[in-house]
Amino acid sequence: MAYNLLKGKKGLIFGALNEQSIAWKVAERAVEEGAEIVLTNTAVSIRMGTISQLAEKCNTIVVPADATSVEDLENLIDKTMKHFGGKFDFMLHSIGMSPNVRKGRTYDDLDYDFLSKTLDISAISFHKAIQVARKKDAINDWGSIVALSYIAAQRTLYGYNDMADAKALLESIARSFGYIYGREKHVRINTVSQSPTPTTAGSGVLGLGDLMSFADNMSPLGNASAEDCADYVLTLFSDLTRKVTMQNLYHDGGFSSMGMSRRAMKTYEKGMRFEDVHQNQFPFGE
Amino acid sequence: MAYNLLKGKKGLIFGALNEQSIAWKVAERAVEEGAEIVLTNTAVSIRMGTISQLAEKCNTIVVPADATSVEDLENLIDKTMKHFGGKFDFMLHSIGMSPNVRKGRTYDDLDYDFLSKTLDISAISFHKAIQVARKKDAINDWGSIVALSYIAAQRTLYGYNDMADAKALLESIARSFGYIYGREKHVRINTVSQSPTPTTAGSGVLGLGDLMSFADNMSPLGNASAEDCADYVLTLFSDLTRKVTMQNLYHDGGFSSMGMSRRAMKTYEKGMRFEDVHQNQFPFGE
Amino acid sequence: MAYNLLKGKKGLIFGALNEQSIAWKVAERAVEEGAEIVLTNTAVSIRMGTISQLAEKCNTIVVPADATSVEDLENLIDKTMKHFGGKFDFMLHSIGMSPNVRKGRTYDDLDYDFLSKTLDISAISFHKAIQVARKKDAINDWGSIVALSYIAAQRTLYGYNDMADAKALLESIARSFGYIYGREKHVRINTVSQSPTPTTAGSGVLGLGDLMSFADNMSPLGNASAEDCADYVLTLFSDLTRKVTMQNLYHDGGFSSMGMSRRAMKTYEKGMRFEDVHQNQFPFGE
Amino acid sequence: MAYNLLKGKKGLIFGALNEQSIAWKVAERAVEEGAEIVLTNTAVSIRMGTISQLAEKCNTIVVPADATSVEDLENLIDKTMKHFGGKFDFMLHSIGMSPNVRKGRTYDDLDYDFLSKTLDISAISFHKAIQVARKKDAINDWGSIVALSYIAAQRTLYGYNDMADAKALLESIARSFGYIYGREKHVRINTVSQSPTPTTAGSGVLGLGDLMSFADNMSPLGNASAEDCADYVLTLFSDLTRKVTMQNLYHDGGFSSMGMSRRAMKTYEKGMRFEDVHQNQFPFGE
Repeated sequence: MAYNLLKGKKGLIFGALNEQSIAWKVAERAVEEGAEIVLTNTAVSIRMGTISQLAEKCNTIVVPADATSVEDLENLIDKTMKHFGGKFDFMLHSIGMSPNVRKGRTYDDLDYDFLSKTLDISAISFHKAIQVARKKDAINDWGSIVALSYIAAQRTLYGYNDMADAKALLESIARSFGYIYGREKHVRINTVSQSPTPTTAGSGVLGLGDLMSFADNMSPLGNASAEDCADYVLTLFSDLTRKVTMQNLYHDGGFSSMGMSRRAMKTYEKGMRFEDVHQNQFPFGE
Repeated sequence: MAYNLLKGKKGLIFGALNEQSIAWKVAERAVEEGAEIVLTNTAVSIRMGTISQLAEKCNTIVVPADATSVEDLENLIDKTMKHFGGKFDFMLHSIGMSPNVRKGRTYDDLDYDFLSKTLDISAISFHKAIQVARKKDAINDWGSIVALSYIAAQRTLYGYNDMADAKALLESIARSFGYIYGREKHVRINTVSQSPTPTTAGSGVLGLGDLMSFADNMSPLGNASAEDCADYVLTLFSDLTRKVTMQNLYHDGGFSSMGMSRRAMKTYEKGMRFEDVHQNQFPFGE
Repeated sequence: MAYNLLKGKKGLIFGALNEQSIAWKVAERAVEEGAEIVLTNTAVSIRMGTISQLAEKCNTIVVPADATSVEDLENLIDKTMKHFGGKFDFMLHSIGMSPNVRKGRTYDDLDYDFLSKTLDISAISFHKAIQVARKKDAINDWGSIVALSYIAAQRTLYGYNDMADAKALLESIARSFGYIYGREKHVRINTVSQSPTPTTAGSGVLGLGDLMSFADNMSPLGNASAEDCADYVLTLFSDLTRKVTMQNLYHDGGFSSMGMSRRAMKTYEKGMRFEDVHQNQFPFGE
Repeated sequence: MAYNLLKGKKGLIFGALNEQSIAWKVAERAVEEGAEIVLTNTAVSIRMGTISQLAEKCNTIVVPADATSVEDLENLIDKTMKHFGGKFDFMLHSIGMSPNVRKGRTYDDLDYDFLSKTLDISAISFHKAIQVARKKDAINDWGSIVALSYIAAQRTLYGYNDMADAKALLESIARSFGYIYGREKHVRINTVSQSPTPTTAGSGVLGLGDLMSFADNMSPLGNASAEDCADYVLTLFSDLTRKVTMQNLYHDGGFSSMGMSRRAMKTYEKGMRFEDVHQNQFPFGE
């Protein structure tokens, strides 16, 4: 169901790779809600994924850009403004990658060049995109910028590794720049802390499948899907949320406010009994 | 501008007194967005305020109810369901009052009967309204319940007194009941932590005017108004936020994420210089 | 090992019932560290428990007092000051009880008289004790007040029921009164959010045993014991923490900052497999 | 007054420059409390400051090391272990510097090489120091690691610039590594979020003097001094806090839990009146 919630609005969307991507869903839904959009991703991702199909569907262009390159971002903002014939209203940052995770370097054995890359790709790129947009005065007054985050920024999850630190940095950038951009142009900047989502980016994280099951069992409403997330992000781009800024907003079915649910505990208890049985059967083993 | 965001939805709104009330604005905007509503307030508030005008405008009824009385709430829910011909979708709790604040009892000289009243009126009434609604199975699956809160629940503001404790309790109730109601009926429960707002209820708080100025200067987007708040609450009643629950959501122009703004600091510095000048002029005085 | 950390200090300790009690451990350790103490509990708890043994060991008195009664508290503070020959330095509040939990009333079926009692016993008693002490100017400058809390104040745990709300209220009172008492007498007020602990009070909570196992598996350092807690509380009573106030301090082996540990996940995964096996064996059942 | 709180413990302290430094105070007090220490700082800081006097006073050595260099850190840990004849028990990280702040680059005009340096010096160096220590198994079981942070990690303060992001990253590293090191060696890792302190490092931040006055007026106990901070850090190195980990601990006289104090509001109100008077006198100006 569409409401024309973004009628007349224009926006730039980073990070759509394929149909699983949250950014993909946001793009589709934004257009349904009356927005015009421009899509961007790295040249490699454009080749690997299917973003050109999305562009076709959304009747728009894809501008290749490495979000860690200020030069690429300058070109991207120029092209976006040219496409729109002027300023735009919203921006989505949905970018994250950790070479340490990919190469199996554990958190007590980080490669520091990899860590720099993790932070640059997953967090500093957000600052760069905003700084470039601001220098070019690309975003309309009362515009809205959103980045996707994860609760690992507040609570440690084994296997999430240096992406946790990247997300903490990302959320801090949203606050720090939210102050400046809000004060001067009324542009709001928020992060959405989303349930674990089965995207291509997420699939690299160790044991994500089981974690998703745990999160789903812990959350009274279950995990939020990519589609749910798109809906929520739309509200943040709309004029109905103009005084919300510098916030990290949990969109997670309630997970962030749970200590322990009955449902998750039942599975956990079964695991405990299984361990007990197992120990009784093989008392000398393992 | 209206989007039909609440088309087909029905809701119950507590706490509209007069045109300044946030609940009043929510009621107006909900109807604009296609919702049907029922209004309620205490008999005294109905007489003191102008809620009947709002009911007329919204083409609905006002059901008198003391939200601290389970009996009144049962009657209210029955009448509301009768009016709607069945279940409804959303509920707004915008109720707060402290006899200690009204009678000038400071926080280190609280009257404990007054404190009980503060908590009962401002927080426990929220639990009562939800519990009664749930026992009567009054709210549709994926419904949405919102209560209005204030940052005093997290940070102490002189003069806010036992209302701070009431808001902390209110937010806890949202989490606790959000788990239960979410798990069983997918009903979400959140609180909106709103900027200080010049309503009749707010005007009792000591020095609210100056505090509002400070908050406005600290917030990059300025204080959120009652109208802004209504817009935001609509998004929480809509189907676009179905996976947001058990959250306290700051709607405050960024205040909650500020440590110190340049603008507020400039005023503060002038006050410091004023104090210095004053001390130099009257070196032996005060 | 003792350090004379509380040499010359005097304090009042609420809530020691028997050897399992955290308050009991705090009393013992405070005396070891050179403090003089006075003990208090309700008349019923004094009869039920073994506090008189503790008093003997600590060479002090037990003053019966119902902490929800201002009159009892006035008498208690008078007797405590008389015993010490003047003001004292610290106070521990370790009191919590929910009639709703005891009587098996679930959170969506609360008895509101019981809820009032839960809040009065577990949270408002803290305000009352401080207000009475302050009116009698019973606590020395730079004194320290601590109450014991639990993470249920921030995150919902099934079965913890209205105690969660009581703890949220308790922590808010610590902040609100911490401002007043700090500003005027430099008395600091904090809460310690302790791991689930196998005390008599805790044993009423549904499924506490399994929850303790889960918390222990989630916490990198394991659950904090009552003895650990006593040690930590001592630091808060000492002169080494004089600028810490209005804080909720997690003493939980890291639990509060964990999203998911490898150890807990392994048990959980076994439970998942167990459920799968079970479903395969009885495909039509349950 | 000394308690022998760290008797038999050994520790490594980063970041003492001169008598104003918090690290200096920690070093002095740690030795008073019975610890042995090793000092380290960059070669430049050693020349610029007076750390050799501290070393003499503490009867120890200074090992020059650039904390952003893994090679230097390896050498440092080796020399420290050699000096102690084995493992040690605690580590203090008190390092922060922003070339963007120094060069007057505002947050919407960051130099990204400078930003990398800010993060590397102020946050990643903490990870490096811990990773090197862990690889060399340099820290005893139940050891304690502390880094100094600031509330800018949670709330934006104008002028604090990219140091806010660095502190957010620092605190995340404490959590992430706290899980790993806790799980395997029971080593706890925490950050202390300290009041603004008039150190050499702090003096580069824009308008720190006025900010310190504001923080002091907001905090019921006033700002915490470097000496206060040293006392608090000692408790975290002691055996009395062994179950506290992955926490960010506010040591700030209550500032973090304040929304507005009466005292700060009075100064602010004077500034408002001053502005009003000023505007009346020069109605057409400015």
